[in-house]
Amino acid sequence: MRPVDLLIVGAGELVTMAGGPRRGERMKDAAVIPGGALAARDGRIVAVGPEDEVLRTVETGPDTRVIDARGRAVIPGFVDPHTHLCFAGDRAEEFALRLGGATYQEIAARGGGILETVRATRAASQAELVELGLARLDQLALNGTTTVEVKSGYGLSLADELKQLRAIRAMARRHPLTVVPTFMGAHEVPPEYRSRREAYVDLLVEEMLPAVAAEPGLARFADVFTEAGVFSVAESRRILERAKALGFGVKVHADELSDLGGAALAAELGAISAEHLLHASDEALAKLAEAGTVAVCLPGTSFCLMNAPYARARRMIELGCTVALGSDYNPGSCPAYAMPFIITLACMHLGLNPSEALAAATINAAAAIGMEAEVGSLEVGKLADVVILSTPTHWHIPYHMGMGVVAKVVKRGRLIVDEGKVRRR
Amino acid sequence: MRPVDLLIVGAGELVTMAGGPRRGERMKDAAVIPGGALAARDGRIVAVGPEDEVLRTVETGPDTRVIDARGRAVIPGFVDPHTHLCFAGDRAEEFALRLGGATYQEIAARGGGILETVRATRAASQAELVELGLARLDQLALNGTTTVEVKSGYGLSLADELKQLRAIRAMARRHPLTVVPTFMGAHEVPPEYRSRREAYVDLLVEEMLPAVAAEPGLARFADVFTEAGVFSVAESRRILERAKALGFGVKVHADELSDLGGAALAAELGAISAEHLLHASDEALAKLAEAGTVAVCLPGTSFCLMNAPYARARRMIELGCTVALGSDYNPGSCPAYAMPFIITLACMHLGLNPSEALAAATINAAAAIGMEAEVGSLEVGKLADVVILSTPTHWHIPYHMGMGVVAKVVKRGRLIVDEGKVRRR
Ligand SMILES: [Zn+2]
Ligand SMILES: [Zn+2]
Repeated sequence: MRPVDLLIVGAGELVTMAGGPRRGERMKDAAVIPGGALAARDGRIVAVGPEDEVLRTVETGPDTRVIDARGRAVIPGFVDPHTHLCFAGDRAEEFALRLGGATYQEIAARGGGILETVRATRAASQAELVELGLARLDQLALNGTTTVEVKSGYGLSLADELKQLRAIRAMARRHPLTVVPTFMGAHEVPPEYRSRREAYVDLLVEEMLPAVAAEPGLARFADVFTEAGVFSVAESRRILERAKALGFGVKVHADELSDLGGAALAAELGAISAEHLLHASDEALAKLAEAGTVAVCLPGTSFCLMNAPYARARRMIELGCTVALGSDYNPGSCPAYAMPFIITLACMHLGLNPSEALAAATINAAAAIGMEAEVGSLEVGKLADVVILSTPTHWHIPYHMGMGVVAKVVKRGRLIVDEGKVRRR
Repeated sequence: MRPVDLLIVGAGELVTMAGGPRRGERMKDAAVIPGGALAARDGRIVAVGPEDEVLRTVETGPDTRVIDARGRAVIPGFVDPHTHLCFAGDRAEEFALRLGGATYQEIAARGGGILETVRATRAASQAELVELGLARLDQLALNGTTTVEVKSGYGLSLADELKQLRAIRAMARRHPLTVVPTFMGAHEVPPEYRSRREAYVDLLVEEMLPAVAAEPGLARFADVFTEAGVFSVAESRRILERAKALGFGVKVHADELSDLGGAALAAELGAISAEHLLHASDEALAKLAEAGTVAVCLPGTSFCLMNAPYARARRMIELGCTVALGSDYNPGSCPAYAMPFIITLACMHLGLNPSEALAAATINAAAAIGMEAEVGSLEVGKLADVVILSTPTHWHIPYHMGMGVVAKVVKRGRLIVDEGKVRRR
C-alpha cells in the first residue's frame, strides 16, 4: 500500500492515452478505462487503472485530496505545442480590417501584422510582458491546458529577443503550467533590416542563436517562419543548421501560405515538428512521416483568418504522419487559445474524430515539443496533469463546441482550476 | 443627490445602446459614452452619462457597491431571444454522425434529431428539467447573458408541454436571469401523430394553446416551426391565428431549410419575430421590414451544422429589417450558447461590424421578445443589467473570438458573475 496525496475516483471514463505518440489507425485509440481511477504522489502518477485495482494499491490519509469525478470523463491535461503568447498590445484594429475584407498579407505589406506586435513588444518592459503572460497562462489553465510551448519572435533584435525569452522564463517560474520555450528570432525580418535581409540572417546565426544558447533555460527549440517574403528555404536551412549545432531542437513554420518547401526542409533536418502545413504536398508530408517529424495542425488560425484553407489532416494520417494540434495563440492570426475549441475545429474542419483530436492535443502534442516522456498521457511515472471534464465522455468536447467542458484541472497533482477559478499557488 | 446601491466607474467606454431598436444605418450606432459611468438603485438604472456628471447627481453610502471597470468596456447585458435550453439528454452521438457526413434531415428521418430529445424530455421529471435548466442558465450568465427566451417544444403532448413550461417558470423563479417563456408545441409532429398530422394540429389549437393560455406565467409567445415536413404554411397560420386570439405574441421558425413562405407568413400575421431565415427571399425580407417583425439570425446553428449557409444579414439591413442575434441553444443543431461567440460568428460570417452585432445582441434582441422597454440598453429607468468586459472596447469581442471577454455581470443591480463564478443568490 502506497500513501498518495491525490486520488481521483468516480470517473465515467478514464482516457489514459497510454502507449506513446500515435500515427495512422492508432490515432483512434484513446486507451480508455471505463470507470478508471488515478492516484498521484509528489506530483507524479503512482497508480492508474480500474478503480478497484487502484484502491487496492494505494493508501489515503488526512492529507490526501480525493476528487470524485461523479461520472465525468477524466483525461490528460491538454498540451499546446505552438503559441506566441508572450506579446504586448493587441491587433483588434487589424481584425476589423480583415472583417472588411483585407487579407493577412495585405495588412503585413502595409506595416501591420507581426510588425505591429513587434513595436508594442519592444516598447514593453520585461516585467510588463511577464504580467501579460501570466494572465494568459491563467486563461489557458481555465481551458485545460497544462503544458504549453511559447515562442519568442516579437523582439527581432538581440536585446528584445533576450528580453522576451527571459520574460517567458520568469512567467514559467511564477505559474503552475509547464512552459516550454522556443527561440523564434526568425519570425520576421525586422523593418530596420528590410533592405539588407542577409545581415539579419547573419545576426541570427552569429549573435542571437549563440547568445540564447549561452543562457540557461532560455530556449529548448529554435523555429523559423519559412515563407515567401519571410525566410527562404536556403536562409531557413542556414539558421536551423546553426541552431542544431548549438544544441537546439528545431521547428519550422512550413508551407502555411504557399508550397515553398518548408515541410521538406523540416524532414531533411530532422525537425521535431513542422507547423501549419496548409499547402504542403503529399510528397513533403510523406517525408515528414518518414523523418518522424510531428505535423502540427493549427485550425484556430484557419478559423480566425476566415478565408484560409484547413490543413489536410486526414491525408497526413493516411501518409503515416504523427498529427498534433496546437492553438497558434497570437494577437494577429489566432487570438483563440482554448484547446477544447481547437479540438472542436479539428473535428469539424480537419476530419478528425474526437479520439483522434484528443490524441493530437495530448500525447502527440507532447511529442511535438519533446515532452512525451513527461506529459500527454496518464501513465505511472508521468506528471499528474489531469483534466476533469464536465461531460461523461471525451466525445462530448466537440459536441459542446468546446464550451464549458473543463470542470477541474490538476497540474503536478495539485488542483489549480476549480469552479472557474485559477489558483496559481 | 440620490442615494444609489450600485455605481460603476472607470469605464473605458460605456456602450449604452440608447435610443431604441435599430435598423439600417442606425445599427452601426452603439451610442458610446467614452469614460461613462452608471448608477443604479433597487435594480434599476438611475443615472448614466459622463462620469463627472453621474458623480454629481448620485450619493454613495456604506452599502453602495462601487465597481471600478479599470478602463474596460461596460455594455448592456446580452439578450438571447431564441433558445431551447429546457431539455433532457444530449445528442453527442448525433453530432458524431454529422461529423461523419450525415445531414440534419437524414438524422431526423431516422427518428433522431428533435424526437430523440422529445423522448428524453418526456422521461424526465419537472424537477430534473429545472436542475438541468438552472445549470445552463449559470453557463449563460457566465457568458454575459442577462435575459433569455426559452421555448418549450420537446414535450409535444399536453402534459409534457405543460411540464416543460412549468419547469421553465420554476427555473426562472430560482435564477437571477430574466427568462421569457415561449410555447412551442408546434416544434415537430410527435411520432404518435405521424399518420394523422391534422389531429396534432387540432390538439395544438383546441387543447394545448388554451391550456397554456389559462395558466398564469407559462408563456408569453407561441412559436411554430414552419418547414417542409414539419408544419405547412396553412397549418402554421391556423396555429398562430389561434395563438394570437388567445393573447400570445407570435414567432415563426421561418425558411430555415427551404423558402417555404414562413417569413411572409410572419409578416402577414404581425409576428414579433421571424427566426433563422436562411432561405427567405428578398421579397419576404422586405415584408418583415415593413411589418416591423424582427429578423432573428442564429449563426451558431449554421456553424454547428457545418454545411449550412449563413443568413443574409447585410441584405436584411439594406432592406430595412431590425436584425437581432440569438444563440438557438439546443442539444441538436446548436449546443453553443455563449453570446460573445455568436457575436464573433455574426462578424465573421454575417458581415456585421462589431457595433452592429452588439446592437443585434442587446437592444434589437430585446425587441424580438418584447422586452425593449426593460432591457437591452443602459438608460435611466431600465433594469441595471450590465456586463463589464475584460477588454477596452466592445470591438474586441469578436477579435478575441468571444473567449474570456466577460469579466463581470450585473443583473438588476446585483453582481451575479465575478471571476468566473456565478452567484444565484
Ligand atoms: Zn506560429
Ligand atoms: Zn429554434
